[in-house]
Amino acid sequence: MGSSNGAINEAEVIALLAKIFQSTDPRIEVGIGDDAAVVKSIDTPTSRQVITTDMAVEGVHFKKEWSSAFEIGRKVTAANLADLLAMGAIPNYLVVAISLTGFEELSWIKDLAEGIAHEAKLGGASVIGGDLTRGESITISMTALGTTLNPILRSGAEVGDSIYLSSLTGWSAAGLRMLENGLAPKSEAEFKAVSEFRAPTIDYEMNFQKASSMCDISDAILIQAKQLAEASGVALSFDMKAISSAPEFAELSSVAQRLEMDVFEFIFGGGEDHVLLATGKSLPGIYVGEVIAGSGLKGLEMKKAPETWRHFN
Amino acid sequence: MGSSNGAINEAEVIALLAKIFQSTDPRIEVGIGDDAAVVKSIDTPTSRQVITTDMAVEGVHFKKEWSSAFEIGRKVTAANLADLLAMGAIPNYLVVAISLTGFEELSWIKDLAEGIAHEAKLGGASVIGGDLTRGESITISMTALGTTLNPILRSGAEVGDSIYLSSLTGWSAAGLRMLENGLAPKSEAEFKAVSEFRAPTIDYEMNFQKASSMCDISDAILIQAKQLAEASGVALSFDMKAISSAPEFAELSSVAQRLEMDVFEFIFGGGEDHVLLATGKSLPGIYVGEVIAGSGLKGLEMKKAPETWRHFN
Repeated sequence: MGSSNGAINEAEVIALLAKIFQSTDPRIEVGIGDDAAVVKSIDTPTSRQVITTDMAVEGVHFKKEWSSAFEIGRKVTAANLADLLAMGAIPNYLVVAISLTGFEELSWIKDLAEGIAHEAKLGGASVIGGDLTRGESITISMTALGTTLNPILRSGAEVGDSIYLSSLTGWSAAGLRMLENGLAPKSEAEFKAVSEFRAPTIDYEMNFQKASSMCDISDAILIQAKQLAEASGVALSFDMKAISSAPEFAELSSVAQRLEMDVFEFIFGGGEDHVLLATGKSLPGIYVGEVIAGSGLKGLEMKKAPETWRHFN
Repeated sequence: MGSSNGAINEAEVIALLAKIFQSTDPRIEVGIGDDAAVVKSIDTPTSRQVITTDMAVEGVHFKKEWSSAFEIGRKVTAANLADLLAMGAIPNYLVVAISLTGFEELSWIKDLAEGIAHEAKLGGASVIGGDLTRGESITISMTALGTTLNPILRSGAEVGDSIYLSSLTGWSAAGLRMLENGLAPKSEAEFKAVSEFRAPTIDYEMNFQKASSMCDISDAILIQAKQLAEASGVALSFDMKAISSAPEFAELSSVAQRLEMDVFEFIFGGGEDHVLLATGKSLPGIYVGEVIAGSGLKGLEMKKAPETWRHFN
């Protein structure tokens, strides 16, 4: 990335990022500024480090017309941190690689970095390194590192467990549909839908430590719950009545109504809310069904099979 | 990434990658296939984990016309692992995020993954996770994790230290120039130059553990040695005579001659060899100068100031 266009000076951007990402975490021995970051080893020998990576591409995962740089930064970070939560891990560190076209305003880049730093802080993580390069479009790639004493896999669900969501899915998909249809939000619920699409609200305090299995709904319940059922060798039976009486169901239904859509298409086919789906006994969150013998997903009732979430392309 | 173009099926690709990247390392508790990878904690409480990330973009860092998928995979991996070596760390794990246009042949993707796996194995690292998405161009983003008892920073050079390179720089830049000029390699040295551009040869056994400071020459000695000098508060004085009698200098000179270039432009201005530059006393590798009081770089003699390496754009 040269400075030929006058808008971006790499050293300036890196200095800016280093400032935005600066951390007082004493475990970080070397952060941004050297060849790599150095962190102290994990607290206890029985603890595990959890590592995940997730890439977001302009035009596929986000659009500059629809989301602010701050929101884009938040969203990509949330997606990465949610993968750590989905393993029962506590987020520690993030590294971020970004390609820019060279036509971005410095303020846009700053907002992006601040969105990343904001969400990282909410999740308890520090950005400890990164890479910045030139590309034809904006791509943001992140790796998140966390620790856990007890990793929660997709394979642990047992017959007799109940199924829980950390919150209701479908908001992000409904918000995307509003933007695609060019509908201006009017109600509080419609504003929430658009806002959740732009940057999801992750409940970093949700305690699913006792879950027998868990995953993050990044694509759709229809996709990920099926994967979990398969990994565990069980069937997941959803309780439509329980879902219909869940908090926020009425509000999400009102958005679906304006869009002339079945709300369950959003709930089961929508993605990018980064809600956690967990199985276990007496967990917090929203009760949505039971783990039973068999395979696949049961109990689903939708007016038509939704197209599952494929980002907006 | 849908399967609409018929060439790529995501599940197929992921299964392929999981196979190529499979590892018998007992420290890996969960690899590809869940929300995130889980690795056992670091062996000793005094050990540090080192983390680095590096992104490569088609048309900026590599061209499909010039390099095979295998070579591209090797090169991106080498760049990441070299950053760990530059900290005095032993590579452990890699995570890889890739965007594909959807028009790649499955065999191309397989070769790419095999190139990554090949280089990772050379460096002693295992690929433990990744992400695959769609984009307008191919982007490969990697995060590498390593451990060290003794991180070697850029800031440790002291007056009285000598300067060493793990091997001669400039091969990759010379090879790029040959490709840019459409010159077919004829001599062994010319073949080596092109080969080093396509995928550099990293000496993973080079023992720079006793170095006082170290960095990886990913851009150019002119850029990175200057950064090291600044971080250490010293000047680096290069010894042109020593460099001229270094192994491979005559061979690289012969390539420069064919290109009608000053060989020192390649040595000081070239990048992407991922050679290590270290300071210290009686280190292995090639002796190239002395750390002296002052600031910046001294002793350099070139017919003209080279354009430093900016990738090929």
